[in-house]
Order: sequence, then C-alpha cells, then structure tokens
Amino acid sequence: MSFFDDDTQLTQGPPGQYQGQVQPHWNIGSNPNGGYLLALAAQALRRALPTQPDPLSVTAHYLQPGLGSQPCRVDVQTLRQGRSLSTASATLLQDGQPRLALLASMGTLHAAAAPMLTLPRPAMPPPEQCPPRSGHAQGVSLPILERLDIRLDPSHADPGQGRSQVGGWIRFRDGREPDPLACLLFVDAFPPALFSRLGPVGWVPTVELTVQLRARPAAGWMQAQFWTEDLSDGRLIEDGALWDSQGRLVAQSRQLALVRLPAAG
Amino acid sequence: MSFFDDDTQLTQGPPGQYQGQVQPHWNIGSNPNGGYLLALAAQALRRALPTQPDPLSVTAHYLQPGLGSQPCRVDVQTLRQGRSLSTASATLLQDGQPRLALLASMGTLHAAAAPMLTLPRPAMPPPEQCPPRSGHAQGVSLPILERLDIRLDPSHADPGQGRSQVGGWIRFRDGREPDPLACLLFVDAFPPALFSRLGPVGWVPTVELTVQLRARPAAGWMQAQFWTEDLSDGRLIEDGALWDSQGRLVAQSRQLALVRLPAAG
Repeated sequence: MSFFDDDTQLTQGPPGQYQGQVQPHWNIGSNPNGGYLLALAAQALRRALPTQPDPLSVTAHYLQPGLGSQPCRVDVQTLRQGRSLSTASATLLQDGQPRLALLASMGTLHAAAAPMLTLPRPAMPPPEQCPPRSGHAQGVSLPILERLDIRLDPSHADPGQGRSQVGGWIRFRDGREPDPLACLLFVDAFPPALFSRLGPVGWVPTVELTVQLRARPAAGWMQAQFWTEDLSDGRLIEDGALWDSQGRLVAQSRQLALVRLPAAG
Repeated sequence: MSFFDDDTQLTQGPPGQYQGQVQPHWNIGSNPNGGYLLALAAQALRRALPTQPDPLSVTAHYLQPGLGSQPCRVDVQTLRQGRSLSTASATLLQDGQPRLALLASMGTLHAAAAPMLTLPRPAMPPPEQCPPRSGHAQGVSLPILERLDIRLDPSHADPGQGRSQVGGWIRFRDGREPDPLACLLFVDAFPPALFSRLGPVGWVPTVELTVQLRARPAAGWMQAQFWTEDLSDGRLIEDGALWDSQGRLVAQSRQLALVRLPAAG
C-alpha cells in the first residue's frame, strides 16, 4: 500500500454507495485538492464497474469545496453498461452536501503503444535540474507537497504572446508508481498556468475539469505541461497533458476556472 | 421563429421533465446529429434555470444513437443553485431509453469583450471562396446540410506533421443568427478533422463532447476550426473552436471519439 492508496480507499455501503475519508494530507491550504477529490470519486466508479475500471473520459463539476478531514460518501449510478464501454455518474458528498458531480465513460486502458497522432512531449531539463514547487503559495501552506514531488520547468516563464504555461515533473514521494487514478490527481497538482504570466493572482477555483485518459502510464517520473490561451470575462480555460517516463502521452485535461483579477489602474 | 427554434422546442411536463420532438432534418444519415441532440437537451437546462440560461461548460456522453423522427423527453436535475453559477444534470430519453447524459454549469454569457488571452482566429479565405460541404459522405446523405450552410477552408489539407484539421464557416440557411444554443450544434457539424489526413475512414462515433461557451456570438457567419493531434488505441481527441463575425472566440470544444481504422497491410 501507499499513502495515495490508503487515502482513496472506500468501503461498500448499500448498492451504489461507497464510504471513505477525505484526508487532509492532500490539501491546498485548508481545502482538499480538486484532483484528489476527483480520484476519490473515480475510485467509486472503478468499484462499481470492476471490468471497465479506467475513466476514458471523466468530467467533474465542483459544487462546493470539500472538507479536509471528514468522511465522504460517493453515490454511483450506472447509466449504460456496454461490452467495451460503460457510462456512469457519481456524486461525492460530505456533511450531507454534494461537493463534486461526475460523469464518466469507463473502459480499459492499455500500455501506451505507437500512436498514429500524438502531442509531442515538450523539451525540458530532467527533474534533477528543475526546482521543486514551493510548499507555500500566496500565504497558504500546501500539505499536498509532502505527498507529491513536483519539479517546475524553469524555462516556462514566457512561452510567447497569448499563452501562459507551466510544466515540469511529478511523482509520489513514497515511491508509488503512477496509474490511471494517479493521473487524475496529477493533472490538478501544479500551480495554475496563468501564474507564470500574471504572478499569483489569487484563488483560481475550478468550475469543471475533464480528463481523457489515453493509456496506462509506465513507471517513473511523469512529465506535465499546462497552458492557458483563453482568459476573458473572469473565466479561463487551462489545458494540460501528461506523458509517462517513456515519453508517451497518457492523459489530456481541460478545466474551466474562475479568476478574479485586480481591477486595472 | 426559425427551423432551429422550432426543432428545439420543448413543452413542460411534470417538474423537471420536458417533452420535445427529434426532427429528422438534422440527421447525419439516419441518425440525429450529436450537436443537435446536445442543443435539445441544453434547451431543457435553459428552461429549468431561466436566470442562468447559458451553458458555461457542458459535457454530454452519448449512450445510444438518437431516433430521428420520434418524441423525446429530457429530465433535468438541479444539483446546486448559486448566485452567478448553477450546476445541473440532464438525460435525454427516446423510446424509454437514455440516449444522452449531460452535466453542465450554467450562467450568463456576455457579448465578447476584449480578452486578456485568446486563441487567435485562423487565417482563411472568406466564405464565398470556400466550397460548401457536400450533402453526401461515405454513401450516406446529410439532411442537416439543408439547414446549415457549411463552407470548408480549402487550405486545411495538410497542417503539418502530427495534426489533422478541418475548418471553415457556418451559419443557418434560414437566416437565424447564432446564439449560445446554436454553438452547441455548430461544434459538431463539420466533417471529422481526421478525414483531412486519412480520408473518410468510416463512422467516428462520439463518446463524449464538452463545450465551453465563452461569449455570446455576434450576428453573421461563424468561423470554425477543428483539429486532432491525439489518435491511439482506437480513440481520438478532436479539439475545436468557434469565432464570431467580429473575430472573437466564443466557444471551445473537445470530444473523445472512437475510430475503427482498416487494418494495415
């Protein structure tokens, strides 16, 4: 076992109901990281559909912040069960309140094989030459960095006009190897891509996060890149991608987030 | 009124239930276009949340093909009602079977203003210099092209290594101007981007489609671009974007689709 496996464990309640505990070790400040909550909810989907355990596409809408040291319940409803693909929805609740609503198509991922088309892995220095993500940001502590080793590509600073990006490397500190569930956490564990352009502009709460898992990752460091090319009217879209240690694309992500910029002038 | 307004009309049934009719005029072959079904289901979300009528982010998972000339029912469940943003799920059923499952964050879109960051509008010839999309493809007829005027950018053929793309212009033939609901149709009305690289390789069924609406479009032709940079293991991701006649980005889209390529050799 590992911290991540321990902290995403669920016990089966009545049919379609799973119980767990949201652990504070994955917090950003005093709130659980959105990717951790997504992984917890996706764990319930895996349990409900054991022969199609991998989210080929999963969307989460964040209804209310989670509670970092409290039990949770995940209700799963299977909408369609197919031969190679099934669709299910899930709701993660704490304190009787829905926090996260999910919709997912589940199937079975394979190890990454030669793709016909693929997003090329970005060039960046190896993890040893990339500084670690700081355990504090904007006056809040990031307990999650005691669980995750995140290195930031120092060359990301200005990717050019119209784009803000952040990239680097990620792995569990306790040596647990990445798998599809871990990818759901990893796509939401870097600083917002916007910060590289505007600096830390405050809380950037996620409205919706969609992850397409494309292949089962190989063991080792994963490489990540996130970028924002669309910010207007107080909302931004952040795209992301993860590559495994073999350089193969294993996940794409996109989120809609709110941003409250200081008034100009 | 217009054909699109007529064909996405719903009547209120019991609380949270809306009834409509799937019209065959939006078919691709004998199946309703996925974007049309999405617009129909989103119409029910608009009705259920009249003060926040615009899908800021909506995800649809396609459970079964729709039926082109049959009644439909859309069940809506509001998951969270907020001051500026609400979240709801919806299911479109025909013949007692769920066809489409939706999860959406609803709010209010504004006319596009100066963005802080934005995807630049691609250069392409004006609509008059772009050939219309053919009303037949791979042996099936496309009745939807009697409703939609779609022009294809002739310069898209090969955007370079690792990417397949299609782009062009789109508007309603009856002069109805675009709005957020129309954008949900428009992001799924072009030929698959993959075809520009591989030719028509057969049916490319959508598993999941997510659309982020970013602004209320101005009147006139809309410009569209769709591209695939990720195809492996029988699944592809197609990204898309729509710009209005003022050149402002109004929507982004991403879908996961299945593709069955003829065996090599």
